[in-house]
Amino acid sequence: MSNVLKLGLPAGSLQEATAELFRKAGYKITFPSRSYYPAIDDPELHCTLIRAQEMGRYVADGSLDCGLTGHDWIVESDANVVELSELVFSKVSRRPVRWVLAVPNDSPIQGPKDLQGKRIATEVVNITRKWLASHGVTAQVEFSWGATEVKPPKFADAIVEVTETGSSLKANNLRIVCDLLKSTTRFVANPAAAADPWKRQKMDDLILMLKGAMAAEGKVGLMMNVRQADLSRVLAQLPALKNPTIAPLADQDFVAVNTIIDEDTVRHIIPQLKAAGASGIVEYPLTKIID
Amino acid sequence: MSNVLKLGLPAGSLQEATAELFRKAGYKITFPSRSYYPAIDDPELHCTLIRAQEMGRYVADGSLDCGLTGHDWIVESDANVVELSELVFSKVSRRPVRWVLAVPNDSPIQGPKDLQGKRIATEVVNITRKWLASHGVTAQVEFSWGATEVKPPKFADAIVEVTETGSSLKANNLRIVCDLLKSTTRFVANPAAAADPWKRQKMDDLILMLKGAMAAEGKVGLMMNVRQADLSRVLAQLPALKNPTIAPLADQDFVAVNTIIDEDTVRHIIPQLKAAGASGIVEYPLTKIID
Amino acid sequence: MSNVLKLGLPAGSLQEATAELFRKAGYKITFPSRSYYPAIDDPELHCTLIRAQEMGRYVADGSLDCGLTGHDWIVESDANVVELSELVFSKVSRRPVRWVLAVPNDSPIQGPKDLQGKRIATEVVNITRKWLASHGVTAQVEFSWGATEVKPPKFADAIVEVTETGSSLKANNLRIVCDLLKSTTRFVANPAAAADPWKRQKMDDLILMLKGAMAAEGKVGLMMNVRQADLSRVLAQLPALKNPTIAPLADQDFVAVNTIIDEDTVRHIIPQLKAAGASGIVEYPLTKIID
Amino acid sequence: MSNVLKLGLPAGSLQEATAELFRKAGYKITFPSRSYYPAIDDPELHCTLIRAQEMGRYVADGSLDCGLTGHDWIVESDANVVELSELVFSKVSRRPVRWVLAVPNDSPIQGPKDLQGKRIATEVVNITRKWLASHGVTAQVEFSWGATEVKPPKFADAIVEVTETGSSLKANNLRIVCDLLKSTTRFVANPAAAADPWKRQKMDDLILMLKGAMAAEGKVGLMMNVRQADLSRVLAQLPALKNPTIAPLADQDFVAVNTIIDEDTVRHIIPQLKAAGASGIVEYPLTKIID
Amino acid sequence: MSNVLKLGLPAGSLQEATAELFRKAGYKITFPSRSYYPAIDDPELHCTLIRAQEMGRYVADGSLDCGLTGHDWIVESDANVVELSELVFSKVSRRPVRWVLAVPNDSPIQGPKDLQGKRIATEVVNITRKWLASHGVTAQVEFSWGATEVKPPKFADAIVEVTETGSSLKANNLRIVCDLLKSTTRFVANPAAAADPWKRQKMDDLILMLKGAMAAEGKVGLMMNVRQADLSRVLAQLPALKNPTIAPLADQDFVAVNTIIDEDTVRHIIPQLKAAGASGIVEYPLTKIID
Amino acid sequence: MSNVLKLGLPAGSLQEATAELFRKAGYKITFPSRSYYPAIDDPELHCTLIRAQEMGRYVADGSLDCGLTGHDWIVESDANVVELSELVFSKVSRRPVRWVLAVPNDSPIQGPKDLQGKRIATEVVNITRKWLASHGVTAQVEFSWGATEVKPPKFADAIVEVTETGSSLKANNLRIVCDLLKSTTRFVANPAAAADPWKRQKMDDLILMLKGAMAAEGKVGLMMNVRQADLSRVLAQLPALKNPTIAPLADQDFVAVNTIIDEDTVRHIIPQLKAAGASGIVEYPLTKIID
Repeated sequence: MSNVLKLGLPAGSLQEATAELFRKAGYKITFPSRSYYPAIDDPELHCTLIRAQEMGRYVADGSLDCGLTGHDWIVESDANVVELSELVFSKVSRRPVRWVLAVPNDSPIQGPKDLQGKRIATEVVNITRKWLASHGVTAQVEFSWGATEVKPPKFADAIVEVTETGSSLKANNLRIVCDLLKSTTRFVANPAAAADPWKRQKMDDLILMLKGAMAAEGKVGLMMNVRQADLSRVLAQLPALKNPTIAPLADQDFVAVNTIIDEDTVRHIIPQLKAAGASGIVEYPLTKIID
Repeated sequence: MSNVLKLGLPAGSLQEATAELFRKAGYKITFPSRSYYPAIDDPELHCTLIRAQEMGRYVADGSLDCGLTGHDWIVESDANVVELSELVFSKVSRRPVRWVLAVPNDSPIQGPKDLQGKRIATEVVNITRKWLASHGVTAQVEFSWGATEVKPPKFADAIVEVTETGSSLKANNLRIVCDLLKSTTRFVANPAAAADPWKRQKMDDLILMLKGAMAAEGKVGLMMNVRQADLSRVLAQLPALKNPTIAPLADQDFVAVNTIIDEDTVRHIIPQLKAAGASGIVEYPLTKIID
Repeated sequence: MSNVLKLGLPAGSLQEATAELFRKAGYKITFPSRSYYPAIDDPELHCTLIRAQEMGRYVADGSLDCGLTGHDWIVESDANVVELSELVFSKVSRRPVRWVLAVPNDSPIQGPKDLQGKRIATEVVNITRKWLASHGVTAQVEFSWGATEVKPPKFADAIVEVTETGSSLKANNLRIVCDLLKSTTRFVANPAAAADPWKRQKMDDLILMLKGAMAAEGKVGLMMNVRQADLSRVLAQLPALKNPTIAPLADQDFVAVNTIIDEDTVRHIIPQLKAAGASGIVEYPLTKIID
Repeated sequence: MSNVLKLGLPAGSLQEATAELFRKAGYKITFPSRSYYPAIDDPELHCTLIRAQEMGRYVADGSLDCGLTGHDWIVESDANVVELSELVFSKVSRRPVRWVLAVPNDSPIQGPKDLQGKRIATEVVNITRKWLASHGVTAQVEFSWGATEVKPPKFADAIVEVTETGSSLKANNLRIVCDLLKSTTRFVANPAAAADPWKRQKMDDLILMLKGAMAAEGKVGLMMNVRQADLSRVLAQLPALKNPTIAPLADQDFVAVNTIIDEDTVRHIIPQLKAAGASGIVEYPLTKIID
Repeated sequence: MSNVLKLGLPAGSLQEATAELFRKAGYKITFPSRSYYPAIDDPELHCTLIRAQEMGRYVADGSLDCGLTGHDWIVESDANVVELSELVFSKVSRRPVRWVLAVPNDSPIQGPKDLQGKRIATEVVNITRKWLASHGVTAQVEFSWGATEVKPPKFADAIVEVTETGSSLKANNLRIVCDLLKSTTRFVANPAAAADPWKRQKMDDLILMLKGAMAAEGKVGLMMNVRQADLSRVLAQLPALKNPTIAPLADQDFVAVNTIIDEDTVRHIIPQLKAAGASGIVEYPLTKIID
Repeated sequence: MSNVLKLGLPAGSLQEATAELFRKAGYKITFPSRSYYPAIDDPELHCTLIRAQEMGRYVADGSLDCGLTGHDWIVESDANVVELSELVFSKVSRRPVRWVLAVPNDSPIQGPKDLQGKRIATEVVNITRKWLASHGVTAQVEFSWGATEVKPPKFADAIVEVTETGSSLKANNLRIVCDLLKSTTRFVANPAAAADPWKRQKMDDLILMLKGAMAAEGKVGLMMNVRQADLSRVLAQLPALKNPTIAPLADQDFVAVNTIIDEDTVRHIIPQLKAAGASGIVEYPLTKIID
């Protein structure tokens, strides 16, 4: 079955966000109820919903050709997979998650050395053990099935827990001591699949579209009319890295400038563009950007 | 009242979708609660909600000048109306509906001839009777008020029922024997209204906008920069029927290409465009397309 | 703290609409639960939710540098503030609100003179008293805590009440006698803040973006290809005030025309453009317009 | 299969109310999605959801042994069935439905005689035709697929429509001319099934429980302590038809009175009971009453 | 119109709770949309929704005969009304509301004397001014339209605000300094109406039913069988104030004990009853209790 | 802190059902958002939400005195705890859960012996390994993070999974081979806590109330009047194990019978009671039953 790519998608809380990303990238995914095989409108893709924690295991043993999962779970499962791409959203709010060591606010623990002989609860037992070993510390690491942040001080002395904004830790009166690992979403492949030309091309095209959709989040298009005489002043306001399109108009004194900028810089740039002589400034939405 | 066009809209399950289509076409429709006269922001249109089954009857007798309904109900009611347009969505998922003959999975019925003397339940009694007559078969056709698919085998030997994906039939352990009729939405007019110049122009303009909105579903805009030397290779990747806009840029080595393509081909075309030399590829959404 | 602008936002029913407007203008506002200090992604802005009725008071005394509130409440509180901008939505449905004198349908009151000695319930006691004085009328004006429209005839002879469409008055069997005040949303500033160069620039930029977002509501972009020979006929169909962009194409017989028009005129203009020779007409959405 | 009773339940708008009634009567009904065979926790009952309009047809021909449907549809379909019970809710708000002749408010039609030669739209074509014949009137009766109340005056001169409170008719500016038929829910049986001893007993028991559950709606239990000397005065306040339970207490001066009364008379009776000497009056809820 | 009692019900946040209380008391209240005259199934009652703040004013001037409102608003408006009943829920969670003086956590204000010359924001301007006067303090009291707890320290030095649990104050970093007024719901009457025999009887009966429904909240019925020999030990476990019903049984060694107790003491009493020899203990729900 | 009982409640899907059970038992539990320490209205109870899988671990080590969890997780964690009570709902629908061995429908595996050398995915690794050992079978048991039923045949040859109705297994085309363990909810205690008289009494009282609330689910009260002459016939219809209350009435020919029966036998018993001479049969709801 050389013309099918077996793709693992993370089940659970990320499922809907992943489907949304694929939709933006141009794929229609639907989830038949009570099935873990999402339907996708590309006969060359066969999707399976798998827990992020197990993705590495099943991509490594070839049950899947490739999959999306967090860098953290690849490290935790020590899976033999190839990372083909990091999928980072351009939106500021989508920060990488961090695995941190956290203790009660009034705990005396200030660093790894203070963990000697303590009880640590965590979902990432292997990451935690390796990190302790790298600091020459011996402690009791217990697997936590969830609700880890409620455990100190009664059920654990410290925890290693994932956090994005830290608010859940704070709400449980915990203090972050230090970071163990930062993690983002990765597109990982089975080594043999990555070496197969057809599968590799299929994966590269898919990654191109996913990254194109992600790049468009937080970006907008900007069109404006500029008098030739003002053109250099207007261009000076645009971000250096961007390469705007400049097209002639019927009125030869004017040109049309068209560019892509970060959505959250629009409010700073538009007043400057207007001051520099741009007129008829129009912002429009984008759905994909491939540089 | 020569300056008013009396327009029938299908009541019931299609009501919200129709209003959405009109909104995309540039009309604001609101449904005052418990009234069947939707408000529309065009004083020359007077809308009435009517069941799709009855649209033909009331357009034919001039109670309405025109209306939207399915081809199936026009045939069933044998109404004397003019079909001005077929309104077909470009989206793949919006398939025409089919009226099919269905029987229990284990029924011996394999074709029309096997229906002789049987009981058939259906909402389209006239279509069914004509079809039986065309096969020289005599059977008992009973009008079904709904839930038709539950009737075999206890309440009927076979049914003639509408289906889109067949899943409801399958869920009731029914098997499709053959098709009687395919049906899509039509814009139908009273013959006299179609011959009145003002009404005809009004209907044609309305159809133009409805089709423009429908055409934009499933289409996207694509802009990119292309080096003159790569232009022919890039253009070769675009669908033959499309006529892309090619505009000069300040940097005379480059041109800006702007085109409209099917949303579900984007994922195939973008990798090819990039391979052919296109850069700064941007996809943007559209709301109407009038060729 | 010269680099912070203290901005008041109206609490209550307008809160979500205001946040939506800011989001369209490029600001991300979130409302932490049970806090009246919305978070905004601009460290130079400090937002506070305040009732519209009190905005004038707190901007006038410098507790806030500026704020959004209705013209009505500025008049009612007689606050010493500077109106920097009127924020009017281009959408037809967003009409200014009116404060009107209303009486029971069967009341003999026909004008201000008939109010002599009567009981009037209202939320705007000061506006009402001044208006009565301007007509030389003496009446008992009682502050109404709400549900004002239920009060006549048992609890008041007349009311001064705000209305947009009049439907709530009609539902309570009230008749509008005359208008006292029309009101739209205003951006008001403390006089000293308006004279501070940094604060003034910050406020002007903010207003520019808010107005850019509002201008884009109810507008759309329109692109089309036009044969040179048809250009003047096509341009004649476009609104006189708009200045379309006309760009050359590779095929020198054609030009690309790009313009912005009111969404609710699209349905009239597109058929005319097509009749005048335009082809490949595409409508696309906009998010900001700064002329 | 002599030990199974085939029971038809009305599909559609009454479905959930019927299931609720059965639950109150002690049966657990669940509706598997996309199936018309509800599951019930009595192996001797086999339920099928059928439109109320068709219940008579399928009970008459023995496809079903019995079913719940309206008296109106039994008359319309002229079905040969036995009415075993009328299921009337004790709650005042559950009034019987009425089929009425309705015309526009300004129509000249005042009675059946004025219908000669008119167009009448209705869902109950047979009832309407018989009623017209009984008045010696000839008119055009058209089957209405729904939204009947919107049809006058444009699509019909009059309608025969079902109504409970008349508010939908009023909202469409229609006036009730006269009543054709009052209808309540009936438990109907196939004549042969009604003559089968086992089926008849099963149906009678089911009816007993349904009526017991219905009787309890709108009733409450009332317990109180009464001094022997006050007993006759207290009993005089209770509805004559009720037979209260009077039990002795340890303190022989007192008795405990326990009775069932209509919920909406409680507020009148309790003050009187208290005035007559009752103490410790307690109201408690009931779920079934079988006299 | 001597046979109608004009009853004011508090509009706004208490509206649904009030309707629920009336329903439990045996009255069916419905709220027609956009009307302030709720429908009630007692032709002798005419209900009007009025803000709690204005209830005193309109009961005092005879626009209403009686109404439900808070003790606080009667005091604030200094209305000349008669309090016929305090309506206190037996449920522990329904505590009286308190009007308190609150200041920022780090404010130096410790008591009324520290308010000299300060700005105080409040909805109860009159209560606050009188209270300040009673302490010989002069301060600036500003009417607050709402969101009062957000005002300190920027917009006020202190506030007088209503609170039930204090959590909203705490969330805004405010500290309670002292109480000004406790308030519960009252049934108030116009003095003339209270002196009218028919109206007074009607009001007394209504209050009896409202209090009966309120008394039943948080109470349950308890039935049990007790051996004669254990009776005194069992009775000793029941609250002293309650007077249980003791009825003989067929088995003369046993009696049936039936009593009403607080729901939140059930869990303490049942183990003791069982230990004392009670068997077959059954708890059942109540809807009204009139002692 | 001898007067506090540390009680663990299962977090996650059972959380709301547990709170509901406690509420029925007379305890008010509320869940402050983002806290794992539910508030309960008994100062002698301190609640913590803990995953069911970890309950055994933390009760065994004394972090908690007691907790509710499944028998399965106690076995899996091999925790040293005392089972004080099995909490079984009387409702038929609340069946015990089963851990079963399941394989694809077309798998050749028919019993434990066929598992030799196979891959088995499960959440209960220890239970599975012990069970395999007891059959002398060696297989690869992999911990499954969830979605276990999707794994065969691609990711596992067999699974050990929990099921109630088997429908999720069936939907994934799996077949149950055999059962490993049945499990119900248990109230478990730390051995030292169970030996502490105060804690033990507190736990026993709590269990008494929980079981009283559970016993009342699916039971109802039944009152009726019976003529002395019919009493023995009526009593013969009541379940043998129940001991009805028989009380004399004023009319000495009659007695009042009061009993508790299973809700799902009501529909069989009531027709028989009526046939045996009972009258005025009334069914009423119960909230607790302690035999």
